[in-house]
Amino acid sequence: MGEVIRLSHGSGGEASRKLVEDVIARYLGNEALDPLDDSAVLAAPGGRLALTTDSYVVNPLFFRGGDIGSLAVHGTVNDLSMVGARPVAITLGLILEEGFALDDLHRILASVRDACAEAGVKVVAGDTKVVERGSADGVFINTSGIGAIPDGVDISASNAAPGDLVILSGAVGDHGIAVLSKREGMDFATSIVSDSAPLNRMVEAMLAVAPSIHAMRDPTRGGLATSLNEIAVASGVGVEVDEAAVPVHAAVGDACDMLGFDVYYVANEGKLVAFVPESHAAAVLEAARADEYGREAAVIGRVVEDNPGLVTLNTKVGGRRILSPLSGELLPRIC
Amino acid sequence: MGEVIRLSHGSGGEASRKLVEDVIARYLGNEALDPLDDSAVLAAPGGRLALTTDSYVVNPLFFRGGDIGSLAVHGTVNDLSMVGARPVAITLGLILEEGFALDDLHRILASVRDACAEAGVKVVAGDTKVVERGSADGVFINTSGIGAIPDGVDISASNAAPGDLVILSGAVGDHGIAVLSKREGMDFATSIVSDSAPLNRMVEAMLAVAPSIHAMRDPTRGGLATSLNEIAVASGVGVEVDEAAVPVHAAVGDACDMLGFDVYYVANEGKLVAFVPESHAAAVLEAARADEYGREAAVIGRVVEDNPGLVTLNTKVGGRRILSPLSGELLPRIC
Repeated sequence: MGEVIRLSHGSGGEASRKLVEDVIARYLGNEALDPLDDSAVLAAPGGRLALTTDSYVVNPLFFRGGDIGSLAVHGTVNDLSMVGARPVAITLGLILEEGFALDDLHRILASVRDACAEAGVKVVAGDTKVVERGSADGVFINTSGIGAIPDGVDISASNAAPGDLVILSGAVGDHGIAVLSKREGMDFATSIVSDSAPLNRMVEAMLAVAPSIHAMRDPTRGGLATSLNEIAVASGVGVEVDEAAVPVHAAVGDACDMLGFDVYYVANEGKLVAFVPESHAAAVLEAARADEYGREAAVIGRVVEDNPGLVTLNTKVGGRRILSPLSGELLPRIC
Repeated sequence: MGEVIRLSHGSGGEASRKLVEDVIARYLGNEALDPLDDSAVLAAPGGRLALTTDSYVVNPLFFRGGDIGSLAVHGTVNDLSMVGARPVAITLGLILEEGFALDDLHRILASVRDACAEAGVKVVAGDTKVVERGSADGVFINTSGIGAIPDGVDISASNAAPGDLVILSGAVGDHGIAVLSKREGMDFATSIVSDSAPLNRMVEAMLAVAPSIHAMRDPTRGGLATSLNEIAVASGVGVEVDEAAVPVHAAVGDACDMLGFDVYYVANEGKLVAFVPESHAAAVLEAARADEYGREAAVIGRVVEDNPGLVTLNTKVGGRRILSPLSGELLPRIC
């Protein structure tokens, strides 16, 4: 049997130090993290600051297309990107359950390292706590992040305006179904891989052609429908979506049909919606499609003055229905 | 029976929105948090940035002198202060267990609000996750924070130098014994109150008289002994402590004797040690003592060239012993 996490790893003393130096720093060491002072010290980036935080409690910890480590990095990088910020640094807070396999911790930290390398961001501060067996579920991760917002960029859920086109960067539902199928051992869904990915480079390319992007959001928990509703409400506008234009992978659509899920409410971890003035939409779409995570990007709808605060779906068969925000709980522990 | 947390509160949909708007924003709302975008947007502070993160898993959640909410704010404010940074903004990540009493959440959020008000800092971004009953222990909190480091300040655990005096801001062991006595129902210890407190204003006053402070640390998990060892090792110096000079409240000393604890390893949440060139030590001590959280501040020792990396204790009876860093686990779930 391999080594496991012990309560002493959370003591703040020698065992804590060894865990940080021999395990965590081995994967994540860098000049800002290594002093292990109470706070990291960074040169101030130019421009306004973005600050965000997210905790990750995904179950299972490892799934097709990622794990809790890569997910935590992608989620925070993407939250920074959604206000147009270039990620500068992130923090890593681990809550470990006594008895957690050290091998799994190594695997997760390697995944954090690789995800950071791809996104071009570093973990500069961290914290590790250990709770008794039965008081947590293996590992929970918090990542917080800071980013620098370039001058001229002003992106907020409240900035969408009539005339904007709605661009979705790719197919929806992959993450939620990938996690669920692993959790429930659904053999039919083995081809579905989480879309978990860092979107910062795509956003940088989109902003390079159109700093005038009004609103962006990554449709994670609550799915596309919830993100669109948040923007419709915050901006006081109506949003119209064309069902036929929304990319959905066939296997995900089939799984949703089988399970009785509406794909618009299933979580994504590597997608964004952007609300863009029509005059810039073609350029933004092209920039998104040129990125490996935006190849399937599409214009899926538009902002209208009618029905402020509501999202309406023009269905494939020519009908219309309201796409409400998620009520109740679709899939717990999805991120 | 009062309302409790349900899984749908973590869905990202309507129930999540209601929890955030009706409960969390009621206590913590401010102009940076209220837009509820994926990241908060802040004016960049001048100077270098400090960034820190901490998760809180304290058990019990409520103890004499504080609770997990105030503790989380104090801990992050203090970690920023330990590199001389003025706290600018913090984030709040909640992991809630299904079935957690909403009344307790209100109480914790009110405590976060009050602790923020006292420290002069705001929660600008947050995240709430809910896990199934049995997968966590009521509530875990992560707070991350950013601060601005004034020009001319260069504080690090690696900067202590021979000749520095070691200033401790007050009596040690109160937090650890207060939490333990509540947890174990120890009636003899009812007079002991956690020292949990924000140290940023005291640090500001200390830096105003001596920007040359070399090293600071708040001795939380692992206690005073561990913090002193960390600085001794990082700076490659010896540290000598005079046992008779270290303030310990009588009730805490008695409790430690009874329980077989060494008070130097018991956690504090409102104390700091500062390593200060001798020429400035009197001014720094006076500044600390003028603050409500530094009234019992004292010079407890000095930095020497001998025994680099070691902390030695000159005992009350005239002996000497090595004060090693904590090995093993003293008190789990103490912060």
